[in-house]
Amino acid sequence: MNMINLDHISANPLLPEVQEAMIKAIQGNYGNPSSQHKMGEQASEAIEQARESVARLINCKAPKEIVFASCGTESVNHAVKGIALANSDKGKHIVTSNIEHNAVIRSLRRLKMMGFQVTSIPVDKYGRVNPGHVIKAIREDTILVTIMHGNNEVGTIQPIKEISQITREKNVLFHTDAVDSVGVVPIDVQELGVDALSFASNPFYGPAGVGGLYIRAGVKLWPLLEGGAQENNKRAGTENLIGIIGMGVAAELAKRDMASRVSHLKNLRTILLKDLPSYIDEYRINGHPEHCLPNLVSLSLKYIEGESVVLMLDDDNIEVSTRSACASGSLRASHVLLSTGLGFADAQGTLVITFGIDNTEDDITRFLAKLKTTVKTLRDYSPLYHK
Amino acid sequence: MNMINLDHISANPLLPEVQEAMIKAIQGNYGNPSSQHKMGEQASEAIEQARESVARLINCKAPKEIVFASCGTESVNHAVKGIALANSDKGKHIVTSNIEHNAVIRSLRRLKMMGFQVTSIPVDKYGRVNPGHVIKAIREDTILVTIMHGNNEVGTIQPIKEISQITREKNVLFHTDAVDSVGVVPIDVQELGVDALSFASNPFYGPAGVGGLYIRAGVKLWPLLEGGAQENNKRAGTENLIGIIGMGVAAELAKRDMASRVSHLKNLRTILLKDLPSYIDEYRINGHPEHCLPNLVSLSLKYIEGESVVLMLDDDNIEVSTRSACASGSLRASHVLLSTGLGFADAQGTLVITFGIDNTEDDITRFLAKLKTTVKTLRDYSPLYHK
Repeated sequence: MNMINLDHISANPLLPEVQEAMIKAIQGNYGNPSSQHKMGEQASEAIEQARESVARLINCKAPKEIVFASCGTESVNHAVKGIALANSDKGKHIVTSNIEHNAVIRSLRRLKMMGFQVTSIPVDKYGRVNPGHVIKAIREDTILVTIMHGNNEVGTIQPIKEISQITREKNVLFHTDAVDSVGVVPIDVQELGVDALSFASNPFYGPAGVGGLYIRAGVKLWPLLEGGAQENNKRAGTENLIGIIGMGVAAELAKRDMASRVSHLKNLRTILLKDLPSYIDEYRINGHPEHCLPNLVSLSLKYIEGESVVLMLDDDNIEVSTRSACASGSLRASHVLLSTGLGFADAQGTLVITFGIDNTEDDITRFLAKLKTTVKTLRDYSPLYHK
Repeated sequence: MNMINLDHISANPLLPEVQEAMIKAIQGNYGNPSSQHKMGEQASEAIEQARESVARLINCKAPKEIVFASCGTESVNHAVKGIALANSDKGKHIVTSNIEHNAVIRSLRRLKMMGFQVTSIPVDKYGRVNPGHVIKAIREDTILVTIMHGNNEVGTIQPIKEISQITREKNVLFHTDAVDSVGVVPIDVQELGVDALSFASNPFYGPAGVGGLYIRAGVKLWPLLEGGAQENNKRAGTENLIGIIGMGVAAELAKRDMASRVSHLKNLRTILLKDLPSYIDEYRINGHPEHCLPNLVSLSLKYIEGESVVLMLDDDNIEVSTRSACASGSLRASHVLLSTGLGFADAQGTLVITFGIDNTEDDITRFLAKLKTTVKTLRDYSPLYHK
């Protein structure tokens, strides 16, 4: 039986057009974009074309404000560490939220070792930041606010526009980790009003290991990778040309098909949430009911462990996840779920189901039927479950 | 007429086997190596296989000592900044040489801004470091020596083994930037005795934008990219799976074909040097006559500018370079050439000719003939030239 991928947040398939462009690039033997001769020019043009496509996807008016990176994590490290270190003469205080990705958390932990102070603000039961808390957290010496756009574990979308109004008023720089939002929902850096925004290519069906950072012109930051003059002196290193070409094509398609993709994903999500009660009981849906990514459902199942469900569904060729792949292998309960007030046991019983444009309504039905028997089997074994 | 690529150091073509493996990976729709399910396992296995191939290429006994990166520049930044920052409790002094790549130079410049001190030691007229100077430069508070393996502008190979005997005796960590050596000449990290070694995939006909760092087990360093637990907690971020698979195959082939490749490149180099005097006069060959990369000739032409030669040869579909692509666009004379004692004018008149396994003896002959007419044309226009 065919594999059903309901773990798109870990790995999206490459679109046929993206595959084609990458294969063409592999066979085309491009040169080095920094070379002075013809072979170099061709490569350079391909990179700038991809930069324009990515810029259009997020309504960035000057493609030079896009700096390519090797992944979302690099972009986040670049933005958070780079802005903090380059602006430390103005202050050493940073504001963040309790539900950030590890790339932000660990970058901030590193900065704390270097003398910075960090205030992390709480979220409500839906995993959402109250902009009022941002106002309160900003101090005289605050130089940066970093709060993510769409959460990778519960799907909640933060009030970024409201927060940027605050940071602009307070003259503090604002970075948002939008790795799981860009290409999935409409993102407009002008409207959001952020100074820096991290993204990756795979969430919109481009290759893994390719990402980028939007940095508003004039924002000072130390490059994370230093050496040559690539990327307008903001990111040294020979470019992953094949990957960047793939991301460019994926960005074009994401922009073109955004409305129909969102509608398809929302439909799958609605069906799943509507049908769930006929298959299982004693569960909770995490995340905000309205301000949320259309492709993600976070489902906490009482009395059982999410990891066991993942492994049993895997035997039936259905791929789901307990949390983002980046955090897999960790035995600790998700800090995001605990921050929303979920108990430890319920956090451990959580599945993250993420749809893609290749999923069908039948996938949802087959998943629900398998989930029902899996949950029954596991609950029958569970010492916590008595019914 | 076909293009003749004599600028392999800027961009090597992908080998057919590498192309094939990457195309298969693109079409194979692998998952995320960190996922817990089947699709993830397949991806994880592909990465570990590539890691083993790369480890074998440099005789690294424990593949876990290899950390993949997005380019040689990332590896260098990771090693230099990461080792310095993680070991600053022991001291803040670093020793380097005058002929390093910008990735090392700019990483060190950044560290200086953070309170580190750097001693840069000179090279002889061949661009070679005298190990005695390393002994003298090491102080009580020296924590790191970083000296490159094979120079990307003059081709000189440094006495790495001799230097590592010194650093081991003095209990100082030693990193070598071997980006233009790994896969080109035999490299054995056991024999070299280094603690960290940076490399990239393209010099051995793998994809650009993929590299790696050998870090001897037990060496403390701060990760440059922090977030998830990828790469044994040494480099966070979703992997460039397609690129890594390509590098793995390229590494296998480089190991298998090392002897015949070196022999072919040496032959081309010998022919070029032997025939040169019949085509042009008043030139100098830079770099060490014996301790040198087999694929590189640095040629300083009197009375003319290298850049003009590059552009005129480009019109004839012959690609050469004035210096590494990373430094292109810079109007300053090469710091490497100036360090060897070359005058400013001669440094500006320098061509870097780099061969690849796809070059033939005929390429050399055609290049020399075109070089002769180009040099004559330019010298006839040169106000410096009177003959």
